[in-house]
Amino acid sequence: MSNSWGKMWRITTYGESHGTSIGVIIDGCPAGLRIDMELVQKALDRRRPGQSALSSARKESDLVELESGIFEGVTTGTPIHLKLKNRDARSKDYESIRQAYRPSHADYSYEAKYGHRDYRGGGRASARETACRVAAGAIAQQFLAHWDIEIHAFVSQIGSTKLDKDQPGEVNYEEIERQLTRCPDPKSSKAMEAAIHSARESKDSLGGQICGHILNVPAGLGEPVYDKLHARLGAAMLSINAVKGFSYGSGFAGSEMRGSAHNDAFVMEEGKIGTTTNHSGGIQGGISNGMPIYFHTAFKPVASIGRKQASVNERGETIDLSIEGRHDPCVVPRAVPIVEAMAALTIADFLLLQQTQKVL
Amino acid sequence: MSNSWGKMWRITTYGESHGTSIGVIIDGCPAGLRIDMELVQKALDRRRPGQSALSSARKESDLVELESGIFEGVTTGTPIHLKLKNRDARSKDYESIRQAYRPSHADYSYEAKYGHRDYRGGGRASARETACRVAAGAIAQQFLAHWDIEIHAFVSQIGSTKLDKDQPGEVNYEEIERQLTRCPDPKSSKAMEAAIHSARESKDSLGGQICGHILNVPAGLGEPVYDKLHARLGAAMLSINAVKGFSYGSGFAGSEMRGSAHNDAFVMEEGKIGTTTNHSGGIQGGISNGMPIYFHTAFKPVASIGRKQASVNERGETIDLSIEGRHDPCVVPRAVPIVEAMAALTIADFLLLQQTQKVL
Amino acid sequence: MSNSWGKMWRITTYGESHGTSIGVIIDGCPAGLRIDMELVQKALDRRRPGQSALSSARKESDLVELESGIFEGVTTGTPIHLKLKNRDARSKDYESIRQAYRPSHADYSYEAKYGHRDYRGGGRASARETACRVAAGAIAQQFLAHWDIEIHAFVSQIGSTKLDKDQPGEVNYEEIERQLTRCPDPKSSKAMEAAIHSARESKDSLGGQICGHILNVPAGLGEPVYDKLHARLGAAMLSINAVKGFSYGSGFAGSEMRGSAHNDAFVMEEGKIGTTTNHSGGIQGGISNGMPIYFHTAFKPVASIGRKQASVNERGETIDLSIEGRHDPCVVPRAVPIVEAMAALTIADFLLLQQTQKVL
Amino acid sequence: MSNSWGKMWRITTYGESHGTSIGVIIDGCPAGLRIDMELVQKALDRRRPGQSALSSARKESDLVELESGIFEGVTTGTPIHLKLKNRDARSKDYESIRQAYRPSHADYSYEAKYGHRDYRGGGRASARETACRVAAGAIAQQFLAHWDIEIHAFVSQIGSTKLDKDQPGEVNYEEIERQLTRCPDPKSSKAMEAAIHSARESKDSLGGQICGHILNVPAGLGEPVYDKLHARLGAAMLSINAVKGFSYGSGFAGSEMRGSAHNDAFVMEEGKIGTTTNHSGGIQGGISNGMPIYFHTAFKPVASIGRKQASVNERGETIDLSIEGRHDPCVVPRAVPIVEAMAALTIADFLLLQQTQKVL
Repeated sequence: MSNSWGKMWRITTYGESHGTSIGVIIDGCPAGLRIDMELVQKALDRRRPGQSALSSARKESDLVELESGIFEGVTTGTPIHLKLKNRDARSKDYESIRQAYRPSHADYSYEAKYGHRDYRGGGRASARETACRVAAGAIAQQFLAHWDIEIHAFVSQIGSTKLDKDQPGEVNYEEIERQLTRCPDPKSSKAMEAAIHSARESKDSLGGQICGHILNVPAGLGEPVYDKLHARLGAAMLSINAVKGFSYGSGFAGSEMRGSAHNDAFVMEEGKIGTTTNHSGGIQGGISNGMPIYFHTAFKPVASIGRKQASVNERGETIDLSIEGRHDPCVVPRAVPIVEAMAALTIADFLLLQQTQKVL
Repeated sequence: MSNSWGKMWRITTYGESHGTSIGVIIDGCPAGLRIDMELVQKALDRRRPGQSALSSARKESDLVELESGIFEGVTTGTPIHLKLKNRDARSKDYESIRQAYRPSHADYSYEAKYGHRDYRGGGRASARETACRVAAGAIAQQFLAHWDIEIHAFVSQIGSTKLDKDQPGEVNYEEIERQLTRCPDPKSSKAMEAAIHSARESKDSLGGQICGHILNVPAGLGEPVYDKLHARLGAAMLSINAVKGFSYGSGFAGSEMRGSAHNDAFVMEEGKIGTTTNHSGGIQGGISNGMPIYFHTAFKPVASIGRKQASVNERGETIDLSIEGRHDPCVVPRAVPIVEAMAALTIADFLLLQQTQKVL
Repeated sequence: MSNSWGKMWRITTYGESHGTSIGVIIDGCPAGLRIDMELVQKALDRRRPGQSALSSARKESDLVELESGIFEGVTTGTPIHLKLKNRDARSKDYESIRQAYRPSHADYSYEAKYGHRDYRGGGRASARETACRVAAGAIAQQFLAHWDIEIHAFVSQIGSTKLDKDQPGEVNYEEIERQLTRCPDPKSSKAMEAAIHSARESKDSLGGQICGHILNVPAGLGEPVYDKLHARLGAAMLSINAVKGFSYGSGFAGSEMRGSAHNDAFVMEEGKIGTTTNHSGGIQGGISNGMPIYFHTAFKPVASIGRKQASVNERGETIDLSIEGRHDPCVVPRAVPIVEAMAALTIADFLLLQQTQKVL
Repeated sequence: MSNSWGKMWRITTYGESHGTSIGVIIDGCPAGLRIDMELVQKALDRRRPGQSALSSARKESDLVELESGIFEGVTTGTPIHLKLKNRDARSKDYESIRQAYRPSHADYSYEAKYGHRDYRGGGRASARETACRVAAGAIAQQFLAHWDIEIHAFVSQIGSTKLDKDQPGEVNYEEIERQLTRCPDPKSSKAMEAAIHSARESKDSLGGQICGHILNVPAGLGEPVYDKLHARLGAAMLSINAVKGFSYGSGFAGSEMRGSAHNDAFVMEEGKIGTTTNHSGGIQGGISNGMPIYFHTAFKPVASIGRKQASVNERGETIDLSIEGRHDPCVVPRAVPIVEAMAALTIADFLLLQQTQKVL
């Protein structure tokens, strides 16, 4: 049951990184939504490895194929199947790691779970699965556009280089795609680029953080107890490969503030209720309050590095491990569209769920 | 659908803070488990307001009543219903806030969602709901004890006072309950106490952080894609009132490390596979690897403070709001058993789910 | 996970027949619905054993208590908890059957499942659980009343006595409650009464059938593939104790018809699309078409009879078994409100689900 | 949410009859199961239209393609995707019915639900979707073979021709596939064949019934309240196109019996508990008791017939409708593998669910 996300807007993904194809079934998208498949492809292109000078040379084939659920450009209410063919499996690349447990990969824990593992690049643990999320998220974003809901994610940290101003109102969204790092501040972005190049030269890797803004969410989305908006959003982000932490609004820093400073005073603004500050991050009691939602997501450095590492193999023997191939020293910029996609899927789910409150 | 948690070990809670009773139904606990109801009561006592000099004077009646599912001290496989009666509603206390939107409470967002709100203390948004989680968690912990799985949560920060050493192996668990703050380091605890007293004097409130350790989890728990162990654990924590962030293992700090430093090298230890470091926090690819699991949870300062605050009321009029009654300046120590409970419920769920892999 | 029903309008029941209490949590009922608790009690009274000369003398205490979710007579959107206290357990009555497997009861299959059983009257297998369904169904019916949706169930067969005319338009619903058997035809009802009295005299039991009509369901409810309206309705009915079969529309008899006779021709009637015949029973392709929905449910004769029967006990020894106490020779009339309740819960669920199609 | 079936062994299907492809994702099949894809293809061949002189000439391309989840012939624990390409869409065939509501098809109810419909042969309402169930069921049957669980379905009635003896022990399963009608009694089968030919000549159609036997199910499967084994099995069958009714064990006839005759006396047989009769159909209190499970499913006659019929179109105009093409006068024989598949999927689900009871 681990391969589905969402209750009303529900996606199910399938496919190993080195099998025939991967794909996603979207169940629950209402009928009558006009879909631009170009926007889906564009989102996939933003996630694809090898898209910029910063990333690995490995090129994945991410040409989306529509198998069902959209007829004459409009959703029919039936399951939408988006498929991506895998290219040739190149099993040779993985022969050297066939019996080794790569440090901080899922090799050992998978084997403990399933009694075996697919040594060809990680099977379902591979980040290739996230392409399916991006495709499904691009459909969800077209759905959210009907409410003018906008989702913007961007890199706010690479290694120890941080973006100072990352809150709603402080960021020029148009700058995001102009920067190789997807950090909207050109100066910070240059510093991040330098850090990535330096990590590559040392055959090492870097982590970082992505900040997400969700604008124009109507007040009232989210469920009050277990399915709080931020709890589902957090789970969505934590389900992305390499994510180690999630916070929203004031986040971890908020735990150092006093209540009198942290509380967001309500005010009337142009006939609408808002708050003077937004430490709540647009969510109160698990439910959106109409203010911008913002959150942070922390990525660890990629586990695949070119350096020789110590490990053990399936027989429990100590080994020296070198993972061949060109490695991506920092996946954080490429993870931006994944963060957007998971946010879009989560908000779409809550939007549908909220319809049941409007029935009387 | 917001009032249930878990797939196989599933709880459903009900009850408003000022209604007749609150309670929890546990569905999915296997038959044949001997239950000590004293342990359930003990866990509830640890969460109860008014238990120490640090907390609010308000006393909630948290005497657990067993309504079903346990016969002659043993679970029967049928739903376990644990109930807590509410004491007299004292609606008078809430009259002053009846039409006001309290800052950083759920008053406004609830009203946006449901078209109304229960002004008597927050309804389901009240932290009183978490008593049900603690009761259910105490049953789950007795289930986990069969695998020697231990869960220890403790306060690692109050305001700006932090505990230095909080990783597995660095903490003396026996000290936790000896300290009023539930911070296991006596010296830090004293400083935290002082900070809480100071906040109370200024009619203000403090946030903080809770660290959780889960020991002896067998390798192989968790689902690889959307229901990663840490994604579900994160959602569990983020569903607790006032939680603003969650991280596991190296967390947000991990995003500043290089891969060569962050990777946990596998080693053989006493015939068992382990890792030299544990930045992974016991979870790799969303699945437990047999190492200790640890995580951090950030709490914002309590929104209810004695100070006068600006706000608006239901008619959109600007008001000055004073929330009467004695307020708890810091709920973080009392949240420790809630964190433990949500961790126990999450692990119990994954343990049951993993049984389906053992069928062949 | 066996104790919940419904996806959007979701009920969870708890309680053994001889424990402290039984009850139901309703999660998903929208906020703002005015509830008349008298109607809930009235529905419970119709299910209660000992209500008429036809049924068993055993009196269950079915006084409904409202614990949460309704404030000042209106639903709040939070879980509604309805509770029924059990009366004194009278364990003595069950001592004689403590180790015996009663024929056609769930004694043996429960023990195979759980490794034990609650010998006090069947635990969760007891029909007492259905009181919870009736209470929840009475809330759902008040919800459905907003769409003028009406649900009428009645006895169409007892033993071999059948009601000739039972289709929508052929039945006088006002007659149902006037008859002890709840068969709306007075003459058939008298014959059924006689059959029940005769069965009682022989310390035996009778089965029968219940027919259900659901009127004014808007076209478009139901989901096309697995959650067809009639598939969920069938599961709802088959989950009622003693039900052995379900059919809708032309049912089993329809399998003997030719397509040209079975097909329901579409016609315009007062500017609205309808069909000349209604072999489809108001459902086509799993989705309501606006015509009356009707269905049949078959009940086996009650397994508890006064006659001596052969069986085996837990040690595998052959025994002669006499089940003491006064037995109800025919539960079918009392099952009428249960059938209505399960139908109401199912339609309410689909009504909420359909809201997601109206979002664009 | 209508396109998935099962909780632990969960399938999700996609695809329209006239789109690019259809397929099924199986989520929850344990790792380590050896799969023979030939058996999957064989099951599909048994469902395929045009396989015998009895059925329609239309040939669907049902060559199964494995996309994921099985590596070197063994399941990996990841989602299994089985795909079937559609052949050329031949939209021309459907032009004549583009705006008509075909009697007893889902045309009108779909349009009421979704605000549109896919006029090309029914979209998801098409029976082509059931090919996906058959493929998934063939995997489930290989799983069930580990417990020696056998599933046999066969035709027990076509039109008014009935098979006399259809209970476990009365049927020669080897005869099923030898008969064009899949009725295991050669004489009855011949009569059924004649009836089908006669219906075809009159451009008409016939319904019928399918009986299913499930052998060697261990005692203890099924959940006691809402997810009774027969409630889920019934929903599974009722979700198959054209099914109007479901019963198990004594079924509708059982409602005419007295308790003393209907009760199944327990006996010891070769050290194992069994029953002398099996009116319970192998299920008591919703849980298997180790005896053979058997059930009946009623199919209405196919709605697509060659005869001219009266109907209305989208503009509400009365029309005379002729559905062109060669029609299958009776789909019941071809539905046999679908019934087997849904039974297999349901039992596999309960088998996995029962694992959680074995944990202590």
